[in-house]
Amino acid sequence: MIYLDNGATSFPKPLSVRQNVDISLKKFSANPGRSGHSLSLRAAKEIFECRKRLKELFNVNSEEEIIFTENCTMALNTVIFGLLSEGDHVLISSMEHNSVTRPLESLKDKGVTYSTFDYSYDDNETVDNVRNLIKPETKLVICTHASNVFGFRFPIERICALCHAYGILFCVDSAQSAGVFDIDVGTNQYDFVCTSGHKSLYGPMGTGVLILNNRNLKPLLYGGTGTESVKKSQPEGLPEKFESGTQNMNGISGLKAGVDFVKNRGIKNIYNHEYKLAKRLFNGLANNRKVITYNKSFDYGKVAPVVSFNIDGVYSEDLVAKLNKYGIMTRGGLHCSPLAHTTMNTIENGTVRVVPGAFNTINDINYLLNVIRKLTN
Amino acid sequence: MIYLDNGATSFPKPLSVRQNVDISLKKFSANPGRSGHSLSLRAAKEIFECRKRLKELFNVNSEEEIIFTENCTMALNTVIFGLLSEGDHVLISSMEHNSVTRPLESLKDKGVTYSTFDYSYDDNETVDNVRNLIKPETKLVICTHASNVFGFRFPIERICALCHAYGILFCVDSAQSAGVFDIDVGTNQYDFVCTSGHKSLYGPMGTGVLILNNRNLKPLLYGGTGTESVKKSQPEGLPEKFESGTQNMNGISGLKAGVDFVKNRGIKNIYNHEYKLAKRLFNGLANNRKVITYNKSFDYGKVAPVVSFNIDGVYSEDLVAKLNKYGIMTRGGLHCSPLAHTTMNTIENGTVRVVPGAFNTINDINYLLNVIRKLTN
Repeated sequence: MIYLDNGATSFPKPLSVRQNVDISLKKFSANPGRSGHSLSLRAAKEIFECRKRLKELFNVNSEEEIIFTENCTMALNTVIFGLLSEGDHVLISSMEHNSVTRPLESLKDKGVTYSTFDYSYDDNETVDNVRNLIKPETKLVICTHASNVFGFRFPIERICALCHAYGILFCVDSAQSAGVFDIDVGTNQYDFVCTSGHKSLYGPMGTGVLILNNRNLKPLLYGGTGTESVKKSQPEGLPEKFESGTQNMNGISGLKAGVDFVKNRGIKNIYNHEYKLAKRLFNGLANNRKVITYNKSFDYGKVAPVVSFNIDGVYSEDLVAKLNKYGIMTRGGLHCSPLAHTTMNTIENGTVRVVPGAFNTINDINYLLNVIRKLTN
Repeated sequence: MIYLDNGATSFPKPLSVRQNVDISLKKFSANPGRSGHSLSLRAAKEIFECRKRLKELFNVNSEEEIIFTENCTMALNTVIFGLLSEGDHVLISSMEHNSVTRPLESLKDKGVTYSTFDYSYDDNETVDNVRNLIKPETKLVICTHASNVFGFRFPIERICALCHAYGILFCVDSAQSAGVFDIDVGTNQYDFVCTSGHKSLYGPMGTGVLILNNRNLKPLLYGGTGTESVKKSQPEGLPEKFESGTQNMNGISGLKAGVDFVKNRGIKNIYNHEYKLAKRLFNGLANNRKVITYNKSFDYGKVAPVVSFNIDGVYSEDLVAKLNKYGIMTRGGLHCSPLAHTTMNTIENGTVRVVPGAFNTINDINYLLNVIRKLTN
């Protein structure tokens, strides 16, 4: 079995992730922050330790700015619904996921509008594309760090600086990039970073992260926080304001080990490894006349390790099914990003997406290329 | 170590729960519903199997009406924010948790009002208390099945029937009762049942359930669902409409085993066991002149296995710390339910809460009673 669907969730997980989940379930699966007994304190410590590691990984000011969510979608929804109100305008890239566009579509009724800016291989052009669309009422820019379909890397550092020059808030969707590209919140002052814990941070499913460098937004969920319980309204203290109800402590314990795995291996080393595999695949596919690829080039540092392609005349989902028969796991269709596919004229057929992870080898890619050759002969 | 904080989360978990989480992480931790490859299908099957078991446990019409959430708080928030708008009035019991009152408080600005009805030992009186507060603009009644602080069981079957006679929607918070009391959606037609997966359903943390017998509400989260991806707006199909983003498949796999555990042991047997322990504790405490208890009686079927008490003159959190030194884990303070404590005049000191679970024994209770005797001598 060759798993190459790491863009949906990473698999396998490091052994330490599984061990942490199991140990937390076996030894201290009490409710964190809900009592003063030893097990509850132990569980709370586990969550704090994960916050600490994420704080360091993303160079965040304080642990309390690390908010745990169910998934990246919930983090993005928190930003979008917590900030926007009638009359606000939002700028998003033309590569955004449904977790950005669908919340914004739902706000149209409430007088929130949005426009899309295009990616260019030339970062200057991408930044210009943003600048040209800024309006007086633009409150927020949301930009994926790397397209989940085509891998294009956006110059988020420069877009963020541009936004701040105009007094606009900036939110990064780093679902495909956290653990693959450096994300430095302290240096760049991104207002919000949303990410999933179960992709290239190697945690279990059910973990997402919202980094709140800017605190001026309403929560998405209201409820018990284990703090200031007597208060009728939601407590203002972080992280509790945004973490109502029982947290996924077992998942977060696994995520802690996932972040350690990423730190120990090194983000740059992980990228180098995955880039090498993706580049080998891209080159192999680009040399096959019956295969369509979508990146004009596949240059180091300019792309996340994501390769989208099609075989001429074959529906992408059918090709995924064929590859599955050879034991190769990929994902076809629209990858929950119809906007990206519309932008790239792949909306009709979608694409087959291959995302290698830290555990894939060059042999996996060679095998896939051999199968593709067989299927196109 | 004697764990008696099962009202916050159950511990330990059945071995099968831990095994399911680990096997799902090890063998098929792919993203369910996001591709057609074997591992993704296997993960989707796991989630469907858990839905099926919950459907049977709660006698729900169809699997698609079982919605997975991060926790019970998220389920309650989905109902409250998905239903209510300006001018609506809500009736809640005076035992509700902050996960009900804080969302409602946040809606006051938007013209949503709420009133509280009291519990009575006499079910006829409780039903009358609801009836007397119904207004023409009352849209929704939210009632906990059993108080998380005092164990009082509400006659939800009769309150629901009353609501429906008046054309009012009814939502049950069964965080403390699912797995302990029967909840029959098919027979009683509760519109919404919100519950946690990690309490008496014995799943891991990070699992909650919303049963949607009534579908006419907006989702709380918008985003990718793996279905109808080309649609700009949120898909209307269930369960996807309410399940945006990657689900906690590993946790849900554990919950599947938790529900099996409950079914195999039998809800009635579990209640009988836990009631026996709680009753023994209640009787022992009520016989101690220095101990204050809050239930006038502790009758079979009228209470969930939840015992709140105080030692005269000792702050509840301090007593929890003392008990912890004896290896006994309980919870003090307000249990995120200040309304319940205000109602019972325990808001100043809170209470020490003891909730036995399926794995506690009469020896645990006897040991606790011995310690309490020592502390009050």
